[in-house]
Amino acid sequence: MSLLVTGTVAFDAIETPFGKTDKIIGGAATYVSLAASYFAKEVGLIGVVGDDFPQSYIDFLASKGINTAGLQIKQGEKSFFWSGRYFNDMNSRETLITELNVLADFDPIVPAGMDAPDYLMLGNLAPVVQSTLIKRLSKRPKLIAMDTMNFWMDVALDDLKETLKMVDVLTINDEEARQLSGEYSLKKASRVIRAMGPKYLIIKKGEHGALLFYEEQVFFAPAMLLEDVFDPTGAGDTFAGGFIGWLAMTDNISFDNMKRAIIYGSAMASFCVEKFGTENIINIDEKLLQERVQAFRELSYVDMLS
Amino acid sequence: MSLLVTGTVAFDAIETPFGKTDKIIGGAATYVSLAASYFAKEVGLIGVVGDDFPQSYIDFLASKGINTAGLQIKQGEKSFFWSGRYFNDMNSRETLITELNVLADFDPIVPAGMDAPDYLMLGNLAPVVQSTLIKRLSKRPKLIAMDTMNFWMDVALDDLKETLKMVDVLTINDEEARQLSGEYSLKKASRVIRAMGPKYLIIKKGEHGALLFYEEQVFFAPAMLLEDVFDPTGAGDTFAGGFIGWLAMTDNISFDNMKRAIIYGSAMASFCVEKFGTENIINIDEKLLQERVQAFRELSYVDMLS
Repeated sequence: MSLLVTGTVAFDAIETPFGKTDKIIGGAATYVSLAASYFAKEVGLIGVVGDDFPQSYIDFLASKGINTAGLQIKQGEKSFFWSGRYFNDMNSRETLITELNVLADFDPIVPAGMDAPDYLMLGNLAPVVQSTLIKRLSKRPKLIAMDTMNFWMDVALDDLKETLKMVDVLTINDEEARQLSGEYSLKKASRVIRAMGPKYLIIKKGEHGALLFYEEQVFFAPAMLLEDVFDPTGAGDTFAGGFIGWLAMTDNISFDNMKRAIIYGSAMASFCVEKFGTENIINIDEKLLQERVQAFRELSYVDMLS
Repeated sequence: MSLLVTGTVAFDAIETPFGKTDKIIGGAATYVSLAASYFAKEVGLIGVVGDDFPQSYIDFLASKGINTAGLQIKQGEKSFFWSGRYFNDMNSRETLITELNVLADFDPIVPAGMDAPDYLMLGNLAPVVQSTLIKRLSKRPKLIAMDTMNFWMDVALDDLKETLKMVDVLTINDEEARQLSGEYSLKKASRVIRAMGPKYLIIKKGEHGALLFYEEQVFFAPAMLLEDVFDPTGAGDTFAGGFIGWLAMTDNISFDNMKRAIIYGSAMASFCVEKFGTENIINIDEKLLQERVQAFRELSYVDMLS
């Protein structure tokens, strides 16, 4: 089934204990659509870049089956740029530079033929841009998933709450869940947040895995144990891309299938963090992916019969 | 099979965001032996208290089937006392008071008839006391498990390394694993630590679950998602008690059975943190325990066939 993705398409400059990069391709929508392209057959991208963004990368996305007709290229303007540094524990980071550039007045225009997706993934953007995109669709998708971050809770909480009412699945990290709900207990936080709109809540805990909440059910997926987390940038977006891509491919939004989607999302994210930026997810071998998914299942498999 | 337990038997005064206690019964060996008593039929306790320790509590331990013949009572002396305060996140704490008292010159004397246990759990104590106990046994147990803490890495690293050579299973938390190994990656840390002696390493991650490493295998058990973590004191010891108690009861030290032991240990620990001190683990209903174990299995169960 068709999947529409929005979010930032950007340049990142990343510093980790393992090294640093110059400006490399990044942005939420880039990671989401790349990861989703391994599963969903019709992936469309809505975003904006400046004329500094390489056509070769847009062509590369297209070669992955991603429809880039909705990627606006603003002549004479520059792409969104983010620069950050990760600390030793890789779970915390500081932002060094944020240049909004073309993102400052991004208007998410939906090209003809892309306005009726079955699945929609709203990558991190201003909540008002996310809700504008929903309103421009000609029919409501079967499932709308949304990612956001603490920044919008600080500066646009009312907009965020309005957008939350319109979505089915929210993905945020544990600190953000605590901030948004005012509850420390994630179990309590999940109830508060789901009362704001999304029926499903995914709490991403980085190296500590991910939780899926729905009604009275909860599912926990561990993170893969890696030799090293090389660069966490984009891991959450890659997770979201694998998750929504799997749902779009299987066209099944049961709780059981969402669990599988989380395992696929986690597997994709585990590849992402093994190298800088998108380097490790631009070409994932199908066999490697299946092996990684199998490793996830074995990691917490226990036969209780002795 | 018989299980011998050592560690502190103590008074604790605990402060959490939910309230504070006066001096209550605590200590590693108390939690370990109580938790183990739900599984293992012959549990012996080696420890030391002052004459301020209530006989009624010793009688209570005995009523749980715990042999307290190895619990020395020092007349005219005071029991070990620890006081600490947990911060809001419940994952970090500060020590307010540590009074070693009788623990300062604890000599672990093994009464006749208790010197040939099948299983041995060395709760947190000075590493030299732990190794002394091992040397006083008349035969080597089938399995020796050991808990320790960062304090001994700071002040008695050589002793600790000597003791590590003598044990089969080490349980420590993630920060301690990183400190002991000098590696941030827990996968790398597990190899460094297992090269020091223990074939099995359990890394406790509190609310983030626990990892078991053995050769090239790794098992991850999530922590139960609770409404509130009321008081984390003793959770690690309760986990260890459930773990070793299950192994002693089933008398099976295969990797598959160790996984089960970790689920039982995690279930016991999840009860522990729901109330102050030992309050919630002195009387756990068998049915409640089985329901909790079942909830653990369901928490990360996924059927990948769509």
